[in-house]
Amino acid sequence: MSDKNSKKLWGGRFKSGSSDVTERLSQSIAFDSKLYRQDIRGSKVHAGMLNKMGILSDGEYSDIVKGLDGIEKEIESGSFDFQTSREDIHMNIEATLTERIGDAGKRLHTGRSRNDQVATDVRLYVKDESVKIGALLKDLINLLIDISEKNIDIILPGYTHMQVAQPVRFSHHMMAYAWKFSRDLRRLRSSADAADFLPLGCGALAGVNYKNDREYLRENLGFSDIIMNSMDAVSDRDFVLDFLYFSAVIGTHMSRFCEELILWSTSEFNFIRLSDSVTTGSSIMPQKKNPDVAELIRGKTGRLYGNLFTLLTILKGLPMTYNRDLQEDKEPLFDSIETVGLCLEGMIEMLSGMEIKKDVMKSAVYRNFSTATDLADYLVKKNVPFRESHEISGSIVKFCEEENRDFFTLTLEDLKRFSSVFESDITAILDPACSTERKESAGSTSQSQVLEQIDILKKRIND
Amino acid sequence: MSDKNSKKLWGGRFKSGSSDVTERLSQSIAFDSKLYRQDIRGSKVHAGMLNKMGILSDGEYSDIVKGLDGIEKEIESGSFDFQTSREDIHMNIEATLTERIGDAGKRLHTGRSRNDQVATDVRLYVKDESVKIGALLKDLINLLIDISEKNIDIILPGYTHMQVAQPVRFSHHMMAYAWKFSRDLRRLRSSADAADFLPLGCGALAGVNYKNDREYLRENLGFSDIIMNSMDAVSDRDFVLDFLYFSAVIGTHMSRFCEELILWSTSEFNFIRLSDSVTTGSSIMPQKKNPDVAELIRGKTGRLYGNLFTLLTILKGLPMTYNRDLQEDKEPLFDSIETVGLCLEGMIEMLSGMEIKKDVMKSAVYRNFSTATDLADYLVKKNVPFRESHEISGSIVKFCEEENRDFFTLTLEDLKRFSSVFESDITAILDPACSTERKESAGSTSQSQVLEQIDILKKRIND
Amino acid sequence: MSDKNSKKLWGGRFKSGSSDVTERLSQSIAFDSKLYRQDIRGSKVHAGMLNKMGILSDGEYSDIVKGLDGIEKEIESGSFDFQTSREDIHMNIEATLTERIGDAGKRLHTGRSRNDQVATDVRLYVKDESVKIGALLKDLINLLIDISEKNIDIILPGYTHMQVAQPVRFSHHMMAYAWKFSRDLRRLRSSADAADFLPLGCGALAGVNYKNDREYLRENLGFSDIIMNSMDAVSDRDFVLDFLYFSAVIGTHMSRFCEELILWSTSEFNFIRLSDSVTTGSSIMPQKKNPDVAELIRGKTGRLYGNLFTLLTILKGLPMTYNRDLQEDKEPLFDSIETVGLCLEGMIEMLSGMEIKKDVMKSAVYRNFSTATDLADYLVKKNVPFRESHEISGSIVKFCEEENRDFFTLTLEDLKRFSSVFESDITAILDPACSTERKESAGSTSQSQVLEQIDILKKRIND
Amino acid sequence: MSDKNSKKLWGGRFKSGSSDVTERLSQSIAFDSKLYRQDIRGSKVHAGMLNKMGILSDGEYSDIVKGLDGIEKEIESGSFDFQTSREDIHMNIEATLTERIGDAGKRLHTGRSRNDQVATDVRLYVKDESVKIGALLKDLINLLIDISEKNIDIILPGYTHMQVAQPVRFSHHMMAYAWKFSRDLRRLRSSADAADFLPLGCGALAGVNYKNDREYLRENLGFSDIIMNSMDAVSDRDFVLDFLYFSAVIGTHMSRFCEELILWSTSEFNFIRLSDSVTTGSSIMPQKKNPDVAELIRGKTGRLYGNLFTLLTILKGLPMTYNRDLQEDKEPLFDSIETVGLCLEGMIEMLSGMEIKKDVMKSAVYRNFSTATDLADYLVKKNVPFRESHEISGSIVKFCEEENRDFFTLTLEDLKRFSSVFESDITAILDPACSTERKESAGSTSQSQVLEQIDILKKRIND
Repeated sequence: MSDKNSKKLWGGRFKSGSSDVTERLSQSIAFDSKLYRQDIRGSKVHAGMLNKMGILSDGEYSDIVKGLDGIEKEIESGSFDFQTSREDIHMNIEATLTERIGDAGKRLHTGRSRNDQVATDVRLYVKDESVKIGALLKDLINLLIDISEKNIDIILPGYTHMQVAQPVRFSHHMMAYAWKFSRDLRRLRSSADAADFLPLGCGALAGVNYKNDREYLRENLGFSDIIMNSMDAVSDRDFVLDFLYFSAVIGTHMSRFCEELILWSTSEFNFIRLSDSVTTGSSIMPQKKNPDVAELIRGKTGRLYGNLFTLLTILKGLPMTYNRDLQEDKEPLFDSIETVGLCLEGMIEMLSGMEIKKDVMKSAVYRNFSTATDLADYLVKKNVPFRESHEISGSIVKFCEEENRDFFTLTLEDLKRFSSVFESDITAILDPACSTERKESAGSTSQSQVLEQIDILKKRIND
Repeated sequence: MSDKNSKKLWGGRFKSGSSDVTERLSQSIAFDSKLYRQDIRGSKVHAGMLNKMGILSDGEYSDIVKGLDGIEKEIESGSFDFQTSREDIHMNIEATLTERIGDAGKRLHTGRSRNDQVATDVRLYVKDESVKIGALLKDLINLLIDISEKNIDIILPGYTHMQVAQPVRFSHHMMAYAWKFSRDLRRLRSSADAADFLPLGCGALAGVNYKNDREYLRENLGFSDIIMNSMDAVSDRDFVLDFLYFSAVIGTHMSRFCEELILWSTSEFNFIRLSDSVTTGSSIMPQKKNPDVAELIRGKTGRLYGNLFTLLTILKGLPMTYNRDLQEDKEPLFDSIETVGLCLEGMIEMLSGMEIKKDVMKSAVYRNFSTATDLADYLVKKNVPFRESHEISGSIVKFCEEENRDFFTLTLEDLKRFSSVFESDITAILDPACSTERKESAGSTSQSQVLEQIDILKKRIND
Repeated sequence: MSDKNSKKLWGGRFKSGSSDVTERLSQSIAFDSKLYRQDIRGSKVHAGMLNKMGILSDGEYSDIVKGLDGIEKEIESGSFDFQTSREDIHMNIEATLTERIGDAGKRLHTGRSRNDQVATDVRLYVKDESVKIGALLKDLINLLIDISEKNIDIILPGYTHMQVAQPVRFSHHMMAYAWKFSRDLRRLRSSADAADFLPLGCGALAGVNYKNDREYLRENLGFSDIIMNSMDAVSDRDFVLDFLYFSAVIGTHMSRFCEELILWSTSEFNFIRLSDSVTTGSSIMPQKKNPDVAELIRGKTGRLYGNLFTLLTILKGLPMTYNRDLQEDKEPLFDSIETVGLCLEGMIEMLSGMEIKKDVMKSAVYRNFSTATDLADYLVKKNVPFRESHEISGSIVKFCEEENRDFFTLTLEDLKRFSSVFESDITAILDPACSTERKESAGSTSQSQVLEQIDILKKRIND
Repeated sequence: MSDKNSKKLWGGRFKSGSSDVTERLSQSIAFDSKLYRQDIRGSKVHAGMLNKMGILSDGEYSDIVKGLDGIEKEIESGSFDFQTSREDIHMNIEATLTERIGDAGKRLHTGRSRNDQVATDVRLYVKDESVKIGALLKDLINLLIDISEKNIDIILPGYTHMQVAQPVRFSHHMMAYAWKFSRDLRRLRSSADAADFLPLGCGALAGVNYKNDREYLRENLGFSDIIMNSMDAVSDRDFVLDFLYFSAVIGTHMSRFCEELILWSTSEFNFIRLSDSVTTGSSIMPQKKNPDVAELIRGKTGRLYGNLFTLLTILKGLPMTYNRDLQEDKEPLFDSIETVGLCLEGMIEMLSGMEIKKDVMKSAVYRNFSTATDLADYLVKKNVPFRESHEISGSIVKFCEEENRDFFTLTLEDLKRFSSVFESDITAILDPACSTERKESAGSTSQSQVLEQIDILKKRIND
């Protein structure tokens, strides 16, 4: 037997060792060392269960716990000696433990397999990281609520098709994203819930030959329920898909928001000024102030989508139960976790320091016939059928464009040429300042409705 | 004004009409006519609200309802005259209504825009279709439970890495998929919940100028809540993504199951025989009996993934609020709805008529050292450390392979050459028939545990 | 034998017919009828080969050709009776032919199978459609060249990070897309080349038992070469992937271009005015002029990406040789063919009628310090090290911003406070009008270089 | 000015430094250090050009070359001090160079920008790596040719729909993959050709103010042509897409091949035995011999697809010219380069040591009516119409199945009950050993045709 396989867990039946390329293809220690905390936690609880059942003596159990605690400290301090030949984090820890405490280390693997062990570690990891990401996401939503409250009076053009449509409150625009992110919070929780089932104690695929105590494992590892089918336990990666999907959707939302921040930072829109802390200059053009953080977050949507499709591809057509292909789930998962966290921090940094140019916004909303809908509605209230009102209003816009005028220069006489029902009360109607307040419907952009939606979301997020 | 635009809703300001290619790019009537029921339901409730608020008279309201009912009947009977120049289902219905009942038809669009109208229709459609798909999915899960109960005694090889691993019950294998599909049911509900918020009454983007009654709309259209931000209401497609994601994941599960059904149908495995109703022959090879339905379902995973990626791409970097790109959400949604439904029907048809060849399965489980793990565990129970037990067991397998023997031909003497702890009780250990029953852990493949998981899932699904 | 299977090609061995859901899953006539021309062409040439080899008599051959010609005419006139129970276009044509001309129709299938027949039809289809798309693509490139030549004098801001960077010629900007599209032309040709190999005569997977004449088939069907491995012939879909990839990349380019056309159409940029023929209005906001065609093309990028991913997913892990999953290649292929053609027509329509607002562009280029790089370069030429020049130039920009001034109001005295090397020749340097002409490097935005690149691309495309 | 930005290239205009999260989002040194060789090569040639044009003196040029050579050696030996605050590999090299040789280091950036510099480095890298991957790919194809030649006599069942279809040569099956890989070689070359255009000298987006000599750069950096549009030069990532697409398609092919190797390694098929060097055991099941390398390669298809979709997503809707999103192109590119190389090495290792069990294959081909097509063709040659022959043959199969017999036990009398045309010559027809040789068509599985296709491919690959 080769030296290489003599170090492996499973070398008994093999004549020759793995080739070098096999090692490079197989090794996962380069990325799965992230799981060390979860692996050690899982092993300690597993040892506790084996002790409770009389498989490990009190002394063995105590040796294992002390040994694992020591290893954890070494890893955290950076002094642990990771060996690539030991393939993955699980074997690095177990082999080191056995070197140090002897046979009890080997006995730790009783009643579990690598398949249920890895599934347990990854589920614990997703649960742990979801808590951190959830906190950042709540910070972002609360920041948007805060910005909305502080800037309740600012009005800017609302766009459809990138064309000026109707005046809206800046707070209303911010809250549109707050609501989108609040749905991401729901998706994150749903993904954490999917992870919250215990696979440990399911063995390689069929269950274990020992009467184990999975309720003990569940309680001490903090899972809410037990996976009741051992073949499902080792073949299921739905919870990873759920996290990658959450990441893709929040990526969608952040990319839309960043697109707007980039647009608003152009000299053409000029609605906001991003702080120096989130912009960079050019190595060649001295006047540049580039919104790099917004661009990078928008660009990182690519990897969030890519990671989801990576795992979907891996899972397509894979037969039961564990197949080695499944090892490829970790890199996309870890990358999406890190990317989402980093992007959320970036969003918070950008929005915190964003200067809102309210005068520029105001002047933009007074241009471009943003109250043409109000004009049409005025006619409707004077009993002109809706479609006719719409056509009259459109004709007035066309007239203004051809004459290079705006609504505010039109006399009542001018208007009467388009419809006899116009009266002097039309002046107030054309004023954008009044337009948002006329929006009385629930969920609209009037001040009272924005304050109400803020109130509702605040409670929903923070209760 | 051109003839073409005179037919449009928005022609007032336009000098020349749309070009032919614009018509072909813009039209959606070829696919969105699917929404006619939801559009008519929405319009009737909207008219009811306008009537309640005094905007429509009782007579107008009654004309609208009658007119819409007539149109619905014509569409269902196939006699309705769809016109491509009227772009979409909404305009086809509204324009026909106005032709028939006059001005009241035009007035129906008061207080709503195409943006909130379309969003409402699609949400209603997703909710309606989710009910049908949910019923099919429950049928499939209950069928798997039924098959498991009826075939509780059948044992087959359990595989990891496509290599024989340990004996498992056929019912356990079926239940692994039942659990996967039960998670899909949760995802489907979560997607239907995401759709269950009312956008109607939000107007084009900012709210409407009329004091509308969105609570009336919500109650009469059966939504559980109201979207409280009008900009979010017209720009949000998360609920469509959620459905496409559910579809992609259930596609994953069905593709894995079909892969196994295809494998089991090969002459090499020969574990099952699919019925003639789901297999086809070859135009050239008379002996063929091809598992086409399983292959097609596996292949359709492609479009389920593709549809999800289509919408994610569309949404990437899209600024607020409504952009015409969003029209492209419907074809992937409709295709995934139809595909998932069809595949579920196909799964049910295949599994209903599947013949299980229990003798072939049994003979397979007796080959290939499927109880090597039990052999190692036997040694562990005799106090041989786990890793050593594993190596001894591996060496015995290697010896058998080299001698072309199986476990059942080994004498106690043979075994003692590998370890002195072997005694006569080893014979029972090596028998696969006993192996599944030794799996005493919760969620394992023993009969009692399989019956317990069936019990749990039954309650979870059908309560 | 059921009625249903008695109509099938392969019913001989089957006891019961296909179920209804199997029919719905299996049928492809709803989409593959597009292939009728190629199927008939292929059958006629195949019959010619069988006749040449003496398998079909002259009379039989003549009957087949006449029968197929008749069927083709009926399909083109819309009078052909397609039957869903006949599954696909191939069987619809063959069964009808046999009904009309008897046994010779059945004999036509001698020496070919559905597997090589379908592969041949799809390859012919891709070749045919590539010619049409190639012509549209060349039209688009030539249109961009034409626009560039006619507007060679127009200058607008060049952007990086969406921030004004340096002045560029409008023609240079248009030519950047012309070059991108010229690479798409190369990709299209490469995909057509991949399709240009003959599978016909390979049989189901192993070759055919008849000494056929594949060289005759190749020559008469116009393929450039023969697929030399029959298993590859029926399992290969690389050429479809190549087309879907071409479509995804040109989608990328069109989406980037459309994004800019949409931006330029905003009231904030206001660089262009799209014609009424490619814009639409709003059902509720009378002033709107929405760039729908540009938005739809940008949105359709989604389905072009989705279609590629659909087929990649289908092919992942599919064993040799033909599997029914492969039937799922056609819908994404047909959809991408149609979408790319439609989008190219849309691009041509949009660009043909686009009004270029050169004064708005000019005024934009004079703002925003677009010559700050020239200022830094001036200092370098006066022997200030590059990095220092960059810093001085940046400080002047910062000064201007703080004082709300632009470059053209700075006196020499003002400038000398930043560096003593400034002299009166700086005035010309700061003028954007001279900046583009100072770009003397090959491929730059100076007039002579733009004319040169036009010349090169013209030759490359049209020779 | 903060300390942080004082280290930046572009700090002149900025008041406060980048925040910590901006640094983490922006930095690329963690992955782009891979480009050091190309960056140094590019800088040396750029310096040569500046020297030729008189912008750098001979002494300065010599200092730059020596300085860069020193840095290259330090990086290769691992002693170079990378600083994250210097963002990327380009700034790490340039800043170190300037520390060591003074102002000449700063002057090196004359006439180039980061945008054209990065594009040049990445193009050089793709070209370099393509050569290595091309060599591995040719090794793999030649190995398949070699295996085919050495095992020309082995016959195994050919499958369609995973059902035994017709007998084929093992060499024919191997060559099917060789042909697929030969198309990947074409795609790889096409991607390397797309990279083979020089962007250097295009500046940030508009060209440079110095009369540079791009022909010198092209010749000395070994590009075949010059990018003639500077805006295209800095915004184009088509060549990266082309590489990622090549990677996805070869991933498709490798996943299909691996799927078959995994199937053939099951105890049910048992057609091959993979060597110990590419298989692993189980930590818990001592009998296992898992085809991990094949599974990992199949699984890595996921990341190859994911990487392609990552970049497609990034590019969707991105306006001209350089946007920071484009920095995200590198990680997917580097990952696909590494993955494809590793997988090719893995394929070669697996196939080199693969044991072919020809007796098992032979016995499989004699079962399952693999010559039913030959039987039908026999009838056709006796003038029974093809469709009837097919039905008779199918009926014989059904009869055998019901009677549990195979073809070889049927007497002439038995056969005559199905058709009177059967004569004693049918015996030879039913023998699979003769079947492959009867395939006389070009590209078929007969020995002469396999030898011919080997000959053709050999020449095509190695000339």
